[in-house]
Amino acid sequence: MANVAKKVSWSGRDPRDDEDERAGETTPLLNGTGPGAAGGARQFTPSFLRPGQLSNVDLNEDIRELLPRPYPNEIPHNEKLLSLKYESLDYDNSENQLFLEEERRINHAAFRTVEIKRWVICAMIGILTGLVACFIDIVVENLAGLKYRVVKDNIDKFTEKGGLSFSLLLWATLNASVVMVGSVIVAFIEPVAAGSGIPQIKCYLNGVKIPHVVRLKTLVIKVCGVILSVVGGLAVGKEGPMIHSGAVIAAGISQGRSTSLKRDFKIFEYFRRDTEKRDFVSAGAAAGVSAAFGAPVGGVLFSLEEGASFWNQFLTWRIFFASMISTFTLNSVLSVYHGNAWDLSSPGLINFGRFDSEKMGYTIQEIPIFIFMGVVGGILGALFNALNYWLTMFRIRYIHRPCLQVIEAMLVAAVTAAVGFVMIYCSRDCQPIQGSSVAYPLQLFCADGEYNSMATAFFNTPEKSVVNLFHDPPGSYNPMTLGMFTLMYFFLACWTYGLTVSAGVFIPSLLIGAAWGRLFGISLSYLTKGSIWADPGKYALMGAAAQLGGIVRMTLSLTVIMMEATGNVTYGFPIMLVLMTAKIVGDYFVEGLYDMHIQLQSVPFLHWEAPVTSHSLTAREVMSTPVTCLRRIERVGTVVDILSDTSSNHNGFPVVESNPNTTQVAGLRGLILRSQLIVLLKHKVFVERANLSLVQRRLKLKDFRDAYPRFPPIQSIHVSQDERECMIDLSEFMNPSPYTVPQEASLPRVFKLFRALGLRHLVVVNNHNEVVGMVTRKDLARYRLGKEGLEELSLAQT
Amino acid sequence: MANVAKKVSWSGRDPRDDEDERAGETTPLLNGTGPGAAGGARQFTPSFLRPGQLSNVDLNEDIRELLPRPYPNEIPHNEKLLSLKYESLDYDNSENQLFLEEERRINHAAFRTVEIKRWVICAMIGILTGLVACFIDIVVENLAGLKYRVVKDNIDKFTEKGGLSFSLLLWATLNASVVMVGSVIVAFIEPVAAGSGIPQIKCYLNGVKIPHVVRLKTLVIKVCGVILSVVGGLAVGKEGPMIHSGAVIAAGISQGRSTSLKRDFKIFEYFRRDTEKRDFVSAGAAAGVSAAFGAPVGGVLFSLEEGASFWNQFLTWRIFFASMISTFTLNSVLSVYHGNAWDLSSPGLINFGRFDSEKMGYTIQEIPIFIFMGVVGGILGALFNALNYWLTMFRIRYIHRPCLQVIEAMLVAAVTAAVGFVMIYCSRDCQPIQGSSVAYPLQLFCADGEYNSMATAFFNTPEKSVVNLFHDPPGSYNPMTLGMFTLMYFFLACWTYGLTVSAGVFIPSLLIGAAWGRLFGISLSYLTKGSIWADPGKYALMGAAAQLGGIVRMTLSLTVIMMEATGNVTYGFPIMLVLMTAKIVGDYFVEGLYDMHIQLQSVPFLHWEAPVTSHSLTAREVMSTPVTCLRRIERVGTVVDILSDTSSNHNGFPVVESNPNTTQVAGLRGLILRSQLIVLLKHKVFVERANLSLVQRRLKLKDFRDAYPRFPPIQSIHVSQDERECMIDLSEFMNPSPYTVPQEASLPRVFKLFRALGLRHLVVVNNHNEVVGMVTRKDLARYRLGKEGLEELSLAQT
Repeated sequence: MANVAKKVSWSGRDPRDDEDERAGETTPLLNGTGPGAAGGARQFTPSFLRPGQLSNVDLNEDIRELLPRPYPNEIPHNEKLLSLKYESLDYDNSENQLFLEEERRINHAAFRTVEIKRWVICAMIGILTGLVACFIDIVVENLAGLKYRVVKDNIDKFTEKGGLSFSLLLWATLNASVVMVGSVIVAFIEPVAAGSGIPQIKCYLNGVKIPHVVRLKTLVIKVCGVILSVVGGLAVGKEGPMIHSGAVIAAGISQGRSTSLKRDFKIFEYFRRDTEKRDFVSAGAAAGVSAAFGAPVGGVLFSLEEGASFWNQFLTWRIFFASMISTFTLNSVLSVYHGNAWDLSSPGLINFGRFDSEKMGYTIQEIPIFIFMGVVGGILGALFNALNYWLTMFRIRYIHRPCLQVIEAMLVAAVTAAVGFVMIYCSRDCQPIQGSSVAYPLQLFCADGEYNSMATAFFNTPEKSVVNLFHDPPGSYNPMTLGMFTLMYFFLACWTYGLTVSAGVFIPSLLIGAAWGRLFGISLSYLTKGSIWADPGKYALMGAAAQLGGIVRMTLSLTVIMMEATGNVTYGFPIMLVLMTAKIVGDYFVEGLYDMHIQLQSVPFLHWEAPVTSHSLTAREVMSTPVTCLRRIERVGTVVDILSDTSSNHNGFPVVESNPNTTQVAGLRGLILRSQLIVLLKHKVFVERANLSLVQRRLKLKDFRDAYPRFPPIQSIHVSQDERECMIDLSEFMNPSPYTVPQEASLPRVFKLFRALGLRHLVVVNNHNEVVGMVTRKDLARYRLGKEGLEELSLAQT
Repeated sequence: MANVAKKVSWSGRDPRDDEDERAGETTPLLNGTGPGAAGGARQFTPSFLRPGQLSNVDLNEDIRELLPRPYPNEIPHNEKLLSLKYESLDYDNSENQLFLEEERRINHAAFRTVEIKRWVICAMIGILTGLVACFIDIVVENLAGLKYRVVKDNIDKFTEKGGLSFSLLLWATLNASVVMVGSVIVAFIEPVAAGSGIPQIKCYLNGVKIPHVVRLKTLVIKVCGVILSVVGGLAVGKEGPMIHSGAVIAAGISQGRSTSLKRDFKIFEYFRRDTEKRDFVSAGAAAGVSAAFGAPVGGVLFSLEEGASFWNQFLTWRIFFASMISTFTLNSVLSVYHGNAWDLSSPGLINFGRFDSEKMGYTIQEIPIFIFMGVVGGILGALFNALNYWLTMFRIRYIHRPCLQVIEAMLVAAVTAAVGFVMIYCSRDCQPIQGSSVAYPLQLFCADGEYNSMATAFFNTPEKSVVNLFHDPPGSYNPMTLGMFTLMYFFLACWTYGLTVSAGVFIPSLLIGAAWGRLFGISLSYLTKGSIWADPGKYALMGAAAQLGGIVRMTLSLTVIMMEATGNVTYGFPIMLVLMTAKIVGDYFVEGLYDMHIQLQSVPFLHWEAPVTSHSLTAREVMSTPVTCLRRIERVGTVVDILSDTSSNHNGFPVVESNPNTTQVAGLRGLILRSQLIVLLKHKVFVERANLSLVQRRLKLKDFRDAYPRFPPIQSIHVSQDERECMIDLSEFMNPSPYTVPQEASLPRVFKLFRALGLRHLVVVNNHNEVVGMVTRKDLARYRLGKEGLEELSLAQT
């Protein structure tokens, strides 16, 4: 079954290899009740019998029947599964005695130091993210320039002599070989670096730990991979991956150490816990958006829209600060690089260029037209997502070996070059060369002093093509050219997204939209006999917004990003309308691209609210039960046995009153985490049973922080037979005030508490404060709103 | 003691007159422990004895000693008090059986209808807010125009003839009489309409119910008042009050009825609870900001920065939608009004005009200069706030009768006119009239074809003066003029804020800042011998940001508002730097103006986080105890007695198991609210003791909603002696799963739960789930970080 995980997961590797992965919170293995059993789950059942517990065996048959071959030819994929292999982050501090003692020791001045450190870290995140973005930009610009010059010279040569097929071959080979390198490093070294990384960061901010997602190795592969993808001429952008890069940088800096480099700088130790780390990762993601689009406010909103649960003003300011620093760093360095040191004209990796509001204002009559464009964008976006869905299912089933993935990437690269070449070759759309700002004008069969206008779209990095479509004067493009380009690029981009390369989908989406938007503008201009207001550049912008909105379905943050990238506030209202329409229309058909991919990975993602019709469920029905509890003073052997039990693999254990009379039902006293127990066992914090009066060894919070986040597995800790008979006192280490809910609480109520506080474990108690169950992320993520009402996903160890 | 409340409170009226005000949540009267007792509170005390309960008598002596006269000559004010007169909003739904039954009955389609209604309401909020803003703008423009023309004609006449003192008299009288009307309606009809309304809306969004704050009457007074204040020539703006206006509109529309008009439209009944209402009020506040500054994104951020606890994506989108609609409505109507119907050039009440980024870009060298301006802004802002603080203390003590307040307002209006006149009279700064865009050029003693440049600043509405300072070409102002203007306007604005008139502080702050910023720019230009980059308009903008930031201390939302109002994204980074510096510097001296006024009103305002050094306190120490509990099946007489007990006046009662053996300690079963009990008693939902088997009358959720939000006082419900002996079954109406915390939970933990979920009551339980205390807003708001560490405020019935 690990093989299923191998290919379905983003990381593409067996999760059992990873010491920092453990399955399941406290949810028993395969305890899903399936959609069929959902009705039955509502009837009252005794607290300790899980509803539907007996009916879940057949549901996972298809997975059990899998052959144990390392790479089966076909991997079936059940959408209605929720994977148990993802761990959760714990946004709730374990307020045990050690923690409280430390906090009480720290005085006001020391807290101020901590606060200053937070700001310093945010500044560093911003600077480093900006520098990484600069690096990507400069390398891509030079390598892509080199490639295009070589190919252009070759084409120019063979246009005269005949034999342009050599040029095609050269172009295709160049692209394929560059992409091969990019794909190999991703597929073989760090599969989690594939794609834009936005779904992974969304999951991380949501509270799901995706293995390897914030490692330095991932960053290196991501940066190299995205450079190679863009240079390789794929229909991709370098903007999406910046968000992931920013997040990795943030995670690295805030922890003051690198696992990949095995270096611990012994700084920022206070921040070594999930709560703090996640805050910094938010700042990193925002800094990434900011660097990518020159949109600091958009970055903050992106982080909040995708990740925030509790809005904290101070945190938001720090995020904003990191974003501003990031775009400023990028701007300064690129300005110096471009030789105009002081003018700060490059706020982001992509700049949409200046939209002059006086020349290109909009009027009220155009608003219905914009809304119509939103509808088109929503439909095309839904089509894109639906096609990509089937493609992804196909990939999950058949293209799961790294070498196959590399071959597919090379194929796409070659086909992209071939399509571009054929399109340029067949196009007879010639434009005068003077006055235009084309970087690599291909003359081909055009008259002297003219260039092929199809080549401006295909023979260029996608970023430049977008800007050209926005700003080239009316008449630069033939409608036929734009139509063909839209069609071909749509399918190429759709095929490209999901390849095993590092690449983003923002720019291709914008490009598709800009192309059909411009086409739309030109048509309008024909229809209205050349009215002044039908500026094709404006419609290209609206089309780009509509298409991007239709694919990714962000609204607020995307509106602001577009506003900031165009440097124009007046377009805010029409862009908002377009994005909202695109979202509403698109959502009618299929969900957003990122959410779709998250769901395809069976990630237990918690949305903003519980499904609206879930008031009929209570904590009693959603909780996992029975719960493995520990006593306050527990035998070491029992602890070791519980931790070693691979069939349950729980991560949090309620601590109950040591009452020998009750068997299972017991008064809650606290909650202790697996990680804490591991550290206790490792440091041999226990006393002999005979000498219970002896004081057990004291640990410091530092011992726990040093082990964070990769606590050793229980198997690596040797406990002798004598030690097994010792007793361990958990009082000092457990969280004495875990959050609890009564059994009668409705699912939305439980959900709200869980989501608002970013919990990992929520103990369900009865009227006498006795533990009856445990709610974890999977128990809540299992319920979702399907076509026919509330659906329940099955849990599986994939 | 009610008299103290009368003048200290915003509403200026006795809270006992209002049926929708009740003192205290469940906190016993005068149970504050005072700063001196804070140390003692940490030691362990038995659960049912409130720490410091005996030491609080002397602390409120100064209040008790007050004379019972209706208007004492001097009202002492203790800053370290927390008023008990403010009720809290309950952001937590009472999920009782009735509610769950309704939710379970509603199917998916019906939920969709509810969702659509939410959007419709937001659209209506946006449209109405925009229209109100238009109304204010148009009326102010016409009335102010009329006034300035009359005064100008008069001045022109008397300049030739001599006897300008008549002009001064005319001007001062006109101003004073207009302001008198504005002040009379506020002071005598609706005192809560005074000021900008931003502190009140901040409190409302924070969860504190300020009496009358969202009533239609308040809106009418606010709108008329702000028009009269601006026309009356006070140093005020009309932008701040738009936020309050938007909030009132939102509260009115979302409830589908008006209490002031006594009309119930029987729509939107689903939204008649605190949770929903507060969401809409957020949208209204955002729509107000959006209309005021043409800043829809800034509006959303304002609402979130000031009010949000849990960030909900759907809610944010709706807020954004309302904001966009609001600015669009304003823009359309004003464009039509100004005769250029289709160009949408007036997105807000104030438009900073277009900042051309090419002409007015900034370079890296200027950044230290901007930071220095931020420091200046912070210091000047702190000075402004400190002066206003003493002034407000003086007003609380001595100027508490409405007639005195009206006289003060008239005095300020006359002095403002006089100062303006003298300044203009003494100024010899003449500028050529052609090429300038001055609305009412005063020639005075200037040569023909010239005008007095001091008059552009004083003889104009403040909005126009701000724009002039930003955009007038270099050389339009003499440094002496600017210096004098800054100085005089600073003191005038400081004196004006806090008068009993409706008016905002945004525009005066911007004006002060723009004046010294421009002065700064001119000085720089001298120093650097007229470098091209030292554009005075740019420095005026930075100065305006610095001064506003130094006074109100907002950062993220203000940055975005400034960016949107200037229509320029490139200035984002320097504006952020300036605002942050101003905030840091200002916070070093004194807190922000709004927070200061909130604190002066002793409002139990919850900040974002618990004080950092409060880990030493636990729920046991902060909770109120003993708690009045009800049994599940309770005698009606007991309920009536408890509700009638004016000395406690609790609003939430834990429902405990009806166990006759225990006396006080009892297992928690649910929580019932005063309002619910009132409705139950009103509808006689009880059965005779002898016939307990009879089914008691069933109520519908509608019965509770109809009574919302002004539940009748217990005194108005007649319960006969026979009825007192009946029994009432609370099981169906109580919330069976209230949030609880154990006694050991630390204050930050309790705070986080309370704040993140927007609670009103949080039950503290012991290990056996028995009620030992109750935490309400006041128990948490009492602790704050003072100069010497943790401070504890006293609670008082003021």
